[in-house]
Amino acid sequence: MTSPRLARLERVRAAMSSAGVDCLLLSLGADLPWLTGYTAMPLERLTMLVLPADADATLVIARLEAPRVAEDPSAFTVLGWDETEDPVEIVARLVGTRRHLAISDRAWATFLLQLQSQVPDAQLRAASTVTGPLRAVKDASEVSALAAASSAADRVATALVEGDISLVGRSEAEVSDDIGRRLVAEGHQRVNFAIVGSGPNSASPHHDATSRVIGPGEAVVCDFGGTLDGYCSDITRTVFTGDPPDEFRALYSVLQEAQAAAVAAASVGTPCERVDGVARDIIAGAGYGQYFIHRTGHGIGLEEHEDPYIVGGNGQPLVPGHAFSVEPGIYLPGRYGARIEDIVVATDEGPRALNRVDHALAVVEV
Amino acid sequence: MTSPRLARLERVRAAMSSAGVDCLLLSLGADLPWLTGYTAMPLERLTMLVLPADADATLVIARLEAPRVAEDPSAFTVLGWDETEDPVEIVARLVGTRRHLAISDRAWATFLLQLQSQVPDAQLRAASTVTGPLRAVKDASEVSALAAASSAADRVATALVEGDISLVGRSEAEVSDDIGRRLVAEGHQRVNFAIVGSGPNSASPHHDATSRVIGPGEAVVCDFGGTLDGYCSDITRTVFTGDPPDEFRALYSVLQEAQAAAVAAASVGTPCERVDGVARDIIAGAGYGQYFIHRTGHGIGLEEHEDPYIVGGNGQPLVPGHAFSVEPGIYLPGRYGARIEDIVVATDEGPRALNRVDHALAVVEV
Repeated sequence: MTSPRLARLERVRAAMSSAGVDCLLLSLGADLPWLTGYTAMPLERLTMLVLPADADATLVIARLEAPRVAEDPSAFTVLGWDETEDPVEIVARLVGTRRHLAISDRAWATFLLQLQSQVPDAQLRAASTVTGPLRAVKDASEVSALAAASSAADRVATALVEGDISLVGRSEAEVSDDIGRRLVAEGHQRVNFAIVGSGPNSASPHHDATSRVIGPGEAVVCDFGGTLDGYCSDITRTVFTGDPPDEFRALYSVLQEAQAAAVAAASVGTPCERVDGVARDIIAGAGYGQYFIHRTGHGIGLEEHEDPYIVGGNGQPLVPGHAFSVEPGIYLPGRYGARIEDIVVATDEGPRALNRVDHALAVVEV
Repeated sequence: MTSPRLARLERVRAAMSSAGVDCLLLSLGADLPWLTGYTAMPLERLTMLVLPADADATLVIARLEAPRVAEDPSAFTVLGWDETEDPVEIVARLVGTRRHLAISDRAWATFLLQLQSQVPDAQLRAASTVTGPLRAVKDASEVSALAAASSAADRVATALVEGDISLVGRSEAEVSDDIGRRLVAEGHQRVNFAIVGSGPNSASPHHDATSRVIGPGEAVVCDFGGTLDGYCSDITRTVFTGDPPDEFRALYSVLQEAQAAAVAAASVGTPCERVDGVARDIIAGAGYGQYFIHRTGHGIGLEEHEDPYIVGGNGQPLVPGHAFSVEPGIYLPGRYGARIEDIVVATDEGPRALNRVDHALAVVEV
């Protein structure tokens, strides 16, 4: 095991001790690969790292999947279960008399229910209460990895705003596939999503790319990202196919100002909700408040969305190494919408945007 | 909403009543699209259908995702939540005084924990205890959809066994990508997996395709599948690059006999574990028992793996419409392995294999 992972393990044990958690149970999600390098398969056969505060860790895994694991006895041992065994029973046995447990946020509910029935007096909480604050603070190598992923996404976004990705006459789904292929060509191992919302669909922030054919004179919101060497990219740019109406220009200009102000506000010590508030105040001040219907951003790292969330109610102050999106949007239902998104890292020298693609409204004639 | 979905809703309510479940809570996994046509995004914003036995259903969803849903008031209404609201609180309010709840098997543990803290006296179980037996029985249109997906996978498997997919000199990962592209070209909308295990890696049933370059004189296990119009394919064929040693031929011949016998045994009324036992007895009888380290199969439908599981301990008898894989394997660690897999449907006329690609050991010189 590489020493960064062993160092993380030590920090996790310290955090468990502060939080009064005496056993961590890691299954689906990024906590497991962050600590062990192994990602559990999202299937009905339970994979779970049992990590007691006071004893060695054991990775419980179906025996047929065990050859996938690079075991490291300095960090954990592997315990394979056979098809007719009950893996939850094995986990319960390893938990032993410990009763303050934390389980992966994304573990399947069915396994949690089985565990609760086998250890009925256990007190359970989400693992992110222990691991979230640790994973949210990226070290230098993680920031480099995020920067590399962002740069790869930037090359695709540059092609978009410069008109190298043809839009008019193609369906949203075709453009989405094109963007996905470009993400891979630029170095991503995996495409996580490639939202393409055109015309009225640009007003639906989580729109699926459909068979709708993009026309001239339309807003097109493109929000895409992938995973490159384990770390995620995520960028949004909005382009207009042809000359935008004045009303769209006005809306976009407010959005651009709000996004830039929120990035500028993302300095160490600023509460997350304040970054959200900066964007929201500008948008509301221009009369679009009811059309900004989502939070300003989310943390990013091994997962597309993780701590810290840039949202009202999150008073957590930014610290150096926090990496997150800043992505306000304005959406007029049935008409059009726009969003601008960059990944930003809080540093002692101020906010550092990892995406560098121009924010000006791109008018493309393609 | 199409009437099949309304009919399913009625059957679910009847099953809830028999099981003493007074509210079903559906989030990630296939139960939700099976009933509503909508698939929840696997993200930290909760999507949950609250389906009381005695009242109308409500889909609780982040407001920004609500435009993705095709609402059907005859089946459910949509309730959007804002970024600063607590969706679990909304779910708890809709649950009301009901206390016998069932939650999606794949719902995130963190949401289950939050729900348990807000409804501390609720009794919870996995939703599959209600929906699993219903979803396991495919109607005629679902069998057609599975057959179409299987045929598409068959066309790729035919290319493999006929030597149209070049192997020697390419990495497992390259071959895996090639198979994935072919699955899409044959009509799948999504590739779910494309395992390629060569040489010693063929002895690891859930091997990830790696940079290992395939050589001559090697076993290559290819297990792949995707989703076509919502339903999954899943097929495995093992080929040998060049003339196989006698020992491999002998092993393969046992495997082929075991797989065929298990398919033949999969008639209506036969317990699932008996189908497993038929394959296992033949393999054990030939001295390979310890090298068949997984169950014989799994149900398939909207999900790659679902009820019924063809595994020791599952005494459930097959009924018409049960669709499942039959995929015994023999794996000699460090040397080589083989697996043969078809999707089979239990019918009143006997077992119907949806995959039709030849089972004979394919020797490919490519």
